[in-house]
Amino acid sequence: MASDVKRVVLAYSGGLDTSVILKWLQTTYGCEVVTFTADLGQGEELEPARKKADLLGIKPEHIFIEDVREEFVRDYVFPMFRANALYEGLYLLGTSIARPLISKKQIEIARKVGADAVSHGATGKGNDQVRFELSYYALEPDIKIIAPWREWDLRSREQLIAFAESHQIPIAKDKRGEAPFSVDANLLHSSSEGKVLEDPAIEAPEFVYQRTIAPEDAPDKATIITVGFEKGDAVSIDGEALSPASLLTRLNELGKDNGIGRLDLVENRFVGMKSRGVYETPGGTILLKAHRGIESITLDRGAAHLKDDIMPRYAELIYNGFWFSPEREMLQALIDRSQEFVTGEVRVKLYKGNVDVIGRTSPYSLYNQDLVTFEEGAVAYDHRDAAGFIKLNALRLRTLGSRARQIGE
Amino acid sequence: MASDVKRVVLAYSGGLDTSVILKWLQTTYGCEVVTFTADLGQGEELEPARKKADLLGIKPEHIFIEDVREEFVRDYVFPMFRANALYEGLYLLGTSIARPLISKKQIEIARKVGADAVSHGATGKGNDQVRFELSYYALEPDIKIIAPWREWDLRSREQLIAFAESHQIPIAKDKRGEAPFSVDANLLHSSSEGKVLEDPAIEAPEFVYQRTIAPEDAPDKATIITVGFEKGDAVSIDGEALSPASLLTRLNELGKDNGIGRLDLVENRFVGMKSRGVYETPGGTILLKAHRGIESITLDRGAAHLKDDIMPRYAELIYNGFWFSPEREMLQALIDRSQEFVTGEVRVKLYKGNVDVIGRTSPYSLYNQDLVTFEEGAVAYDHRDAAGFIKLNALRLRTLGSRARQIGE
Amino acid sequence: MASDVKRVVLAYSGGLDTSVILKWLQTTYGCEVVTFTADLGQGEELEPARKKADLLGIKPEHIFIEDVREEFVRDYVFPMFRANALYEGLYLLGTSIARPLISKKQIEIARKVGADAVSHGATGKGNDQVRFELSYYALEPDIKIIAPWREWDLRSREQLIAFAESHQIPIAKDKRGEAPFSVDANLLHSSSEGKVLEDPAIEAPEFVYQRTIAPEDAPDKATIITVGFEKGDAVSIDGEALSPASLLTRLNELGKDNGIGRLDLVENRFVGMKSRGVYETPGGTILLKAHRGIESITLDRGAAHLKDDIMPRYAELIYNGFWFSPEREMLQALIDRSQEFVTGEVRVKLYKGNVDVIGRTSPYSLYNQDLVTFEEGAVAYDHRDAAGFIKLNALRLRTLGSRARQIGE
Amino acid sequence: MASDVKRVVLAYSGGLDTSVILKWLQTTYGCEVVTFTADLGQGEELEPARKKADLLGIKPEHIFIEDVREEFVRDYVFPMFRANALYEGLYLLGTSIARPLISKKQIEIARKVGADAVSHGATGKGNDQVRFELSYYALEPDIKIIAPWREWDLRSREQLIAFAESHQIPIAKDKRGEAPFSVDANLLHSSSEGKVLEDPAIEAPEFVYQRTIAPEDAPDKATIITVGFEKGDAVSIDGEALSPASLLTRLNELGKDNGIGRLDLVENRFVGMKSRGVYETPGGTILLKAHRGIESITLDRGAAHLKDDIMPRYAELIYNGFWFSPEREMLQALIDRSQEFVTGEVRVKLYKGNVDVIGRTSPYSLYNQDLVTFEEGAVAYDHRDAAGFIKLNALRLRTLGSRARQIGE
Repeated sequence: MASDVKRVVLAYSGGLDTSVILKWLQTTYGCEVVTFTADLGQGEELEPARKKADLLGIKPEHIFIEDVREEFVRDYVFPMFRANALYEGLYLLGTSIARPLISKKQIEIARKVGADAVSHGATGKGNDQVRFELSYYALEPDIKIIAPWREWDLRSREQLIAFAESHQIPIAKDKRGEAPFSVDANLLHSSSEGKVLEDPAIEAPEFVYQRTIAPEDAPDKATIITVGFEKGDAVSIDGEALSPASLLTRLNELGKDNGIGRLDLVENRFVGMKSRGVYETPGGTILLKAHRGIESITLDRGAAHLKDDIMPRYAELIYNGFWFSPEREMLQALIDRSQEFVTGEVRVKLYKGNVDVIGRTSPYSLYNQDLVTFEEGAVAYDHRDAAGFIKLNALRLRTLGSRARQIGE
Repeated sequence: MASDVKRVVLAYSGGLDTSVILKWLQTTYGCEVVTFTADLGQGEELEPARKKADLLGIKPEHIFIEDVREEFVRDYVFPMFRANALYEGLYLLGTSIARPLISKKQIEIARKVGADAVSHGATGKGNDQVRFELSYYALEPDIKIIAPWREWDLRSREQLIAFAESHQIPIAKDKRGEAPFSVDANLLHSSSEGKVLEDPAIEAPEFVYQRTIAPEDAPDKATIITVGFEKGDAVSIDGEALSPASLLTRLNELGKDNGIGRLDLVENRFVGMKSRGVYETPGGTILLKAHRGIESITLDRGAAHLKDDIMPRYAELIYNGFWFSPEREMLQALIDRSQEFVTGEVRVKLYKGNVDVIGRTSPYSLYNQDLVTFEEGAVAYDHRDAAGFIKLNALRLRTLGSRARQIGE
Repeated sequence: MASDVKRVVLAYSGGLDTSVILKWLQTTYGCEVVTFTADLGQGEELEPARKKADLLGIKPEHIFIEDVREEFVRDYVFPMFRANALYEGLYLLGTSIARPLISKKQIEIARKVGADAVSHGATGKGNDQVRFELSYYALEPDIKIIAPWREWDLRSREQLIAFAESHQIPIAKDKRGEAPFSVDANLLHSSSEGKVLEDPAIEAPEFVYQRTIAPEDAPDKATIITVGFEKGDAVSIDGEALSPASLLTRLNELGKDNGIGRLDLVENRFVGMKSRGVYETPGGTILLKAHRGIESITLDRGAAHLKDDIMPRYAELIYNGFWFSPEREMLQALIDRSQEFVTGEVRVKLYKGNVDVIGRTSPYSLYNQDLVTFEEGAVAYDHRDAAGFIKLNALRLRTLGSRARQIGE
Repeated sequence: MASDVKRVVLAYSGGLDTSVILKWLQTTYGCEVVTFTADLGQGEELEPARKKADLLGIKPEHIFIEDVREEFVRDYVFPMFRANALYEGLYLLGTSIARPLISKKQIEIARKVGADAVSHGATGKGNDQVRFELSYYALEPDIKIIAPWREWDLRSREQLIAFAESHQIPIAKDKRGEAPFSVDANLLHSSSEGKVLEDPAIEAPEFVYQRTIAPEDAPDKATIITVGFEKGDAVSIDGEALSPASLLTRLNELGKDNGIGRLDLVENRFVGMKSRGVYETPGGTILLKAHRGIESITLDRGAAHLKDDIMPRYAELIYNGFWFSPEREMLQALIDRSQEFVTGEVRVKLYKGNVDVIGRTSPYSLYNQDLVTFEEGAVAYDHRDAAGFIKLNALRLRTLGSRARQIGE
């Protein structure tokens, strides 16, 4: 299998696993490795990754490091939040939404450096392998994909470390021991799973949480903020215009400080089994509530209900890795079409894990006080219209009722 | 219009509004009024309603008072919660779900006493008129319906009180003034709307809340409970078996004490306008989370996703008043079919407004630790299968990618 | 009611009914009437309508006559056919799709001539009143709408004719008698309903059909045509480029001659009752089959299935009159997004009522002979991939099966 | 791979392919083969299969032959037709629906004879392997599955025949040559694909059709039949009660004689590519039309539209092989719930490929002539109700229209 790859672009974090992969690719495939390391807001410095790649023999011109935070939030996170997407009613899709972007960058680099393969560090039981590879194939149908975790015979942490040692891969001291769980992180969320989390009956230990303080530790006084929206996307906090990534960073800080965005979930993976994860999405949790808040006064009922109806399917597509599919793009066209007037401001109260919308205003508000007020207003709502509305809506039910009575039901 | 009604069954609360309606029916239609007062868990005593009906000239045998709390929770609330129903992503449908039961009881009484009409106190701009009347018509297609708020010319609180005074209807002292908002309540929730709540930009004042304390006022220490489920319905708390209504009552207390279940929402009414409401659903909020928790380990992915996909439609049907429709019953059949093994226990942490699932167990759990663990287990999961799975899922995307490349996209 | 209208734009056919309406508007509302007569391809000359309007006292500058056939097909019929829309599985929506265009033209004229009202000749039991009026309101929210059939007390054909006679409205001799059924027609279809068709147990008599010959009378030899498509719309027949209306006209002739496009249907009206109609849609029936034919090789599965899933809802919206609604526009955005490569040619065989696709070609075909052929081709399809694909798709079913066995199901 | 199977139940047709498989299983796996041959109405005698199995060394008690036609139609075809299922708008799922039954029988036999494996003759590029294997796994999660076409190295017809010859498998003379296309058949349909059909641009040759005469060859006079339904299933033809399989057989004859039920289709396979098939479903085509006909007068609009909305998903599940999945069963529960009153008679006209419903009657008809008639009837339909109905349906559109005007759109 190893003979026909010449140059491979690896999604490289600089950590132990992808360093082992890097070396394994060199030794097994005898090919040149090109590394891509992205700053997605995972909260780690990138320069160590460059040094390590260099140390492992990657040519300088083949070490690609890029800060993609703005692109990530603007072109992936925000479009997804326009849909109010939740997988299985609860999960904000923080890992799922980052994979397509990494894949796209790898393919772009592969074209630039003339690579014939791409590789990633996702394991053989998870969703991420699917998300990476569906994206690769959609963008570059003939690309060769190498998924080391499915190919090699390293089956435990010990074997991994043994491989590292025998190939002179430096191992950080704190990485020698078995990690008590595994983590994925980016600007939208961090997720933890495995090991101490594997029994869904047992509460996740506090040390699992990395990105939020516990509600119990949050201030006793609420923080109130105003989030500004334009055409469905958040654009400001408390009146200050912010770029997408800056805005999400700010919301993350606010969420973290107020103990917001923790989720302990058993979910259904695309590959067929259930798994348990702990997610922390502080800013995203605020953003979802705020977005629903601004939609509540600017979006028509027909538009809102259609969005709600198709949302689970849209979320499932992203979860399953079909970001670059025609059906996701069609649903996005539908969603985006609805957001033209989703503009205005939402006041949100943050308090010890709670996010509550307490006020909404918009120049395009469809809320009409005259229409709802108890007293009949100037507007064209005649109480008697309701009688006809009910009568015709009831007509088919009455016909059914008559039939039921006739047959003595 | 007034001539052809002989006997009308009125949904009677004993309050000022329905007492005025009672008298108005007597004087305008010259008909006999039969009252029906239900204990739905709204938290008011029923005997005053009996006395008042008696005072207003209703024959003792025409005063119907019934405690329907168990029926309400068992046959309406619980079936709805099997669906994880949320209207517009957030509203737990507390008012909507009570109307069909009241209507059904009125129709049953109408048959018993030979009444030819029914009447209710819902106004002409709201959803409740629709919910009452669709239910009446579905169950008794030829029933005559009288909706006083759409018929009479009383247009303000002053006129209502004047009518009451001129007809010797006693008025509680605290009802003389204008109420700052209007309320509906039952065992599932209380809702508040109107007046001080009409501007959606302005935060709901604390005095609006009646059924929950503020998260700020809740204990500094979390309460942890275990909710037991059988076939999708909650049956116990902390190991104690409870009837449906008792269980919901207990959850309400727990929720209230921990500041749980408040919602400030701008929603879309079926009659076409937006309105702003404040809902308090303490027990229901806990129940929804716990139900999703037990489903997360007992429900198959295919079943769960199908449920999520049809949920918004199911919720809309209930919101719009179509409980007694074939399509709601068809969806219920689908939902109920999925709940056979939704049995087990969920540990839930309640803390200052937060409801978090922290553990789940079930004799029918589909969660399989062997399948998800990093190490390959004894079970039949072969990492290499994932490659084929991805390849075939990618096939159509690769074909699309090839086309795109051919045409130089 | 009659006092506050100054000028009304009437959808005027020139026939007896709308002539009576015209006069009734003048006499009842004392207002100026502006007539709008459209050539939608209904197959009647328009000049008689002009003469008759003139005769009834309409100012020349207030008589609007327009050939809207191209606009009708291009902006209404074709977008709808991109969706393969069928109401209740069978009906091609020929009447529904014409109403929004007529309404839009009336509103445009109302603005031009400063009219404050619009009026139409649809009856009070049908769908068309809803379609006209929802469109009026969506485009001009404060317009006054006059629906004579719901207002006046003319309750039978005799009364109508009596009114006509007493107001010097000329009556065509063949219109004196009771028509055996009523008709609506435009370039897409003609529909017949009422009277002789009212009993759904009885076969529609042959004289009802106006736009198609019977399959029995069609030629014994098939006609084979090639329909060319570009981006989802038909653009040519047998290689000849045709404008939208010309193309549909040609297809109508071909369909008519081959006995194609008859439908005898009991359908559910939006206003709540069932009705029976006979539809003739010769060209549309061919177009639907041909469009599905070209989609079958150019549309990806994910796109195609999403389209099929949302189609019934899209069709229902059009049937119910919600063309000018945000949700229809959102669905249209989704549909249109899918049509970019729906380009190519379809060979269709027409024979005595049958329309069969017998060949399809496209420069953008996704059909790949290499992939399906029994012999393994050069392409990247490995039979072994299927094993992994099946194994992971089966994983959750196996977990369910294990549970079932454990509990002795 | 070959060592661990002791006894395998093979879906055995008696033809060349499965005879080669039988021998290959014996020689490669060294295991005992148990054959299952079903009469699904494919139109072949079963005794030759018994003889051939005997000849190939299968013990008499391990040769299972069963006539499953009634079970097939009653428990698989009819439930599916209650849904009006069509895959990709056109395909009646004739092959898809037979696979689960065969799989179920194989698993039952495996349990009876203590077999540890099952095997089938489906190839590695098709849907049938998926349908067989998902069903096996769902019913017996630990069963071993052998799919010879994915395992062996026979890659052409020549190799197959060479294998047969070298193993003394008798080969029918007419099977020596290359078949011009491959066929699957059962009581519901026959399908043809491959070879001469592989180019979708070229019309299917007449010799492909086996189960229907051409419309051109059908009688010049229409045949009119009456199909009786009870609770959604067809039970009689022209008043004669018939068992499910007898009824479908009769409809097949009627369809065949009238040139009904041919379909030439390019479809999307679950395994990711497009394929072209020719289907002949004479009886099913009549049945679908008749079922929609009886539903049109007995099914409420809400029920009917919900069914139409979920139908594509239901059809996709069956096509993809998920008959034995919880989501298919949930959808079935929904569908079946709707069929209680789908009882009555439908008159259908069959003529040269056309199937037209020309009359419907039912003791449970919801069609109400009083409601639709032009003249106002005795029933409670007041034309004026329509005004209120429209006004409230328009309210949100008017609000949108006002906003659009305010912002100068």
